[in-house]
Amino acid sequence: ARPRVGYFYTGKTGSELLTEKIKSYKVQDYQSIPIVVHEGVSVYDAISTMFLEDVGTLFVVDDKSCLTGILSRKDLLRASIGTQDLNVVPVHIIMTRMPNITVCRKDDLLIDIANLLINKQIDGIPVIKDTDKGLEVTGRITKTTITKAFVELIANDQV
Amino acid sequence: ARPRVGYFYTGKTGSELLTEKIKSYKVQDYQSIPIVVHEGVSVYDAISTMFLEDVGTLFVVDDKSCLTGILSRKDLLRASIGTQDLNVVPVHIIMTRMPNITVCRKDDLLIDIANLLINKQIDGIPVIKDTDKGLEVTGRITKTTITKAFVELIANDQV
Repeated sequence: ARPRVGYFYTGKTGSELLTEKIKSYKVQDYQSIPIVVHEGVSVYDAISTMFLEDVGTLFVVDDKSCLTGILSRKDLLRASIGTQDLNVVPVHIIMTRMPNITVCRKDDLLIDIANLLINKQIDGIPVIKDTDKGLEVTGRITKTTITKAFVELIANDQV
Repeated sequence: ARPRVGYFYTGKTGSELLTEKIKSYKVQDYQSIPIVVHEGVSVYDAISTMFLEDVGTLFVVDDKSCLTGILSRKDLLRASIGTQDLNVVPVHIIMTRMPNITVCRKDDLLIDIANLLINKQIDGIPVIKDTDKGLEVTGRITKTTITKAFVELIANDQV
């Protein structure tokens, strides 16, 4: 029989190909630059940094530049309507701290981190590297990251 | 020749199937419930509502319940570090107002709204219905919505 040309049967269905494509997305290919503040800065300065850098999540580090906490817009909004003086209170008083922080690593699958964002109801997750001193923050994954990846699923397709 | 069984050739490639799948996602199938406040409520009350309802975006309506503005966590955080009395200032002073609001409708494609969230750098978009009185808010699409849709691309696949 004359061979049909024009397509190649890979033995995979459309949805298997879709799953395969999404599972090829790694954290390191999509992460953004992390914005960090020292745990001693004031809540006011952290809010200023958040506006200046236009991010929704700040990572808090100690003197050794290792991760000790996270600040979301929600954390800062909660603090700002409190009675404390924002210029005096340091961020380590109001931050979410280790070990209550969800972290990820550069080789993790983006889809797994998207799942964590939804299941843990958080806005951003730090990408970390384990070092002798502690956790070094090397990137960030947020719902914006995932929304961009979703948009790219089709954008790349039309190249 | 004996027909091959076990798969069906649709004439489409994997990425065409992916594009088709994503383009079948409509706003109405993914939208969340919109949380609205009246334009006369105080900034403090709006912040309280945001925490109570645990949302990142509030929609502001007038006496006819029609959309007049939007409040993001960022808007409220900016206001909260200002010098104004949050209990006195009404939200219509600080909100982003029409016509500077990006809206969508229930029949829009989710992928197009995801694109708007990224390109306009906003967190949430109201789903509206055009009425004689003005724009009625019927839902909301946020980066959380899109992150959930991204996760479902594979979750549905494994059913």
